[in-house]
Parts: sequence; C-alpha cells; structure tokens
Amino acid sequence: MTLKPIGVIRSPYAERKDAPRQGFLSDQTATLELAPEYAEGLLGLKPHSQILVLYWADRAERDVLQTKTPFGPEIKGVFVCRSPARPNPISLCVAEVVAIDKHLVRVKGLDALDGSPLLDIKPQISADHPNAAVDR
Amino acid sequence: MTLKPIGVIRSPYAERKDAPRQGFLSDQTATLELAPEYAEGLLGLKPHSQILVLYWADRAERDVLQTKTPFGPEIKGVFVCRSPARPNPISLCVAEVVAIDKHLVRVKGLDALDGSPLLDIKPQISADHPNAAVDR
Repeated sequence: MTLKPIGVIRSPYAERKDAPRQGFLSDQTATLELAPEYAEGLLGLKPHSQILVLYWADRAERDVLQTKTPFGPEIKGVFVCRSPARPNPISLCVAEVVAIDKHLVRVKGLDALDGSPLLDIKPQISADHPNAAVDR
Repeated sequence: MTLKPIGVIRSPYAERKDAPRQGFLSDQTATLELAPEYAEGLLGLKPHSQILVLYWADRAERDVLQTKTPFGPEIKGVFVCRSPARPNPISLCVAEVVAIDKHLVRVKGLDALDGSPLLDIKPQISADHPNAAVDR
C-alpha cells in the first residue's frame, strides 16, 4: 500500500513547536499546493466550505505505541490520542477554504508543518452525523 | 510513503452494495483485528467511546478524479465528495467502541468492507471543535 502525494502543504509552521496544538486555534492561512494534474479533483469546491485535509506527518516517529499526553503524566496508547507519532502518521485536520486558484487552495485553521505531503481532501462531516458530508 | 496495515477489519459487508452508505445508519457490529504487536497502542481505550477508524479502501479505484454523486447527475471532483475512489483511498468512519479484548476491538457504526486493511485509530473529534478530541 503505497501513498502518492497529491501535493504539498505550505504553512507558516516550520517546526512542531511553531504549530498550534489544534489548527482551529489559529487564524493563520496555509496553502494546499496540489500537483497541477490533480486540479480537476477540486471541481465544485467552494470558498467558505469546511474540508478535511489528510496529510502525511513526515517528521513523526512511526515506532512509538504509547505516549504521554500533553495534559498530564498519564501514558496512553497512540490509538487513544491525537499525537502525530503512530505506525501510519496520517494526520487529519478540519480547515476552511479561503480561496481557490486552479490547483492552489488557501485554507484557514490547518495545523500542518510546512512541506508536509498532502494525501487527500474530503468534505467535512456534520456535527449531527459525524460521517455525513455537510455540503453534498 | 508506505503504509503498514496495523490489522484487518472484519465486517458483515462483503461487497459495496451490502454496506450502508454511511456507517452510522447501521447498528451492525464489526471487529478491528489489530495484529497482536499493536495491542499496546490501545492502552486507555474505553467501551462506549467514539473513535475515528482509518482504513484502506483496497477495492476502490485510484485513477478517478471526478465522479457523479449518488444524489443527482452532478459531476464533482473526488476531493469534494466522499466517494472511496480517489488517488489515496484512505477512508475514515466514526464508530463506537462496544468491547475490547486484547487486540480485538468490537465497534458499531463502521461502513468498511470485510477484509479492509486497518491503518489507524484516533479519538473522535468533538462537534464544537472539529479537531479536538472528545475524551483526552
């Protein structure tokens, strides 16, 4: 199972210490730079829509199975916390579309480090039915 | 970027036509069969918690960039809909933990086909702050 990056994320966060703990805590913008050949996959995307951005946390450890949470001394399994360290470091973050220009999507609220490989974009899920797209 | 399956999903859905359009529409249970060496990553997981299950939609097409939605004749980019067909067919579904037995996690509300490779488990995100874990 091999991932193909569909693009790269350009964000103001060079290192993990620069990034907000959760993207929604910040008003900074980032750009999803899709490779031009994937631009047609954006057909119908609208500004102000909420999207789910899946990216590869390429600087995260993959051989860690338990970790301390940032909220106390407790040790938890990586599958029970949101740490980027995990066997498959696929991170996901809800972001708001600010503007779309061909293969470039500017978004607000993304926590990704600059240069992270972009894997996928999905419509965000509604609060009432967590798996249902808000805007079909 | 190579994914390593952390296990396999055992579900009642042999084919896509058997699966609910969204997992939350069903009360069927499925089992996340982690490889035993990943069991320690579940430390702290509790029954009744909401989890986000990431799995590989191994039967989905990867070379499709636009698709008809199930809701009408409209054509949309794959990044604007929840179709499993996309360059990186990483599916995600919110499920509720029913029971945990070592490396086996029984869940309710999962839409995955039987035999889908399991990639990751994360705590579910709250409705108010879509990226925040409900239970830290």
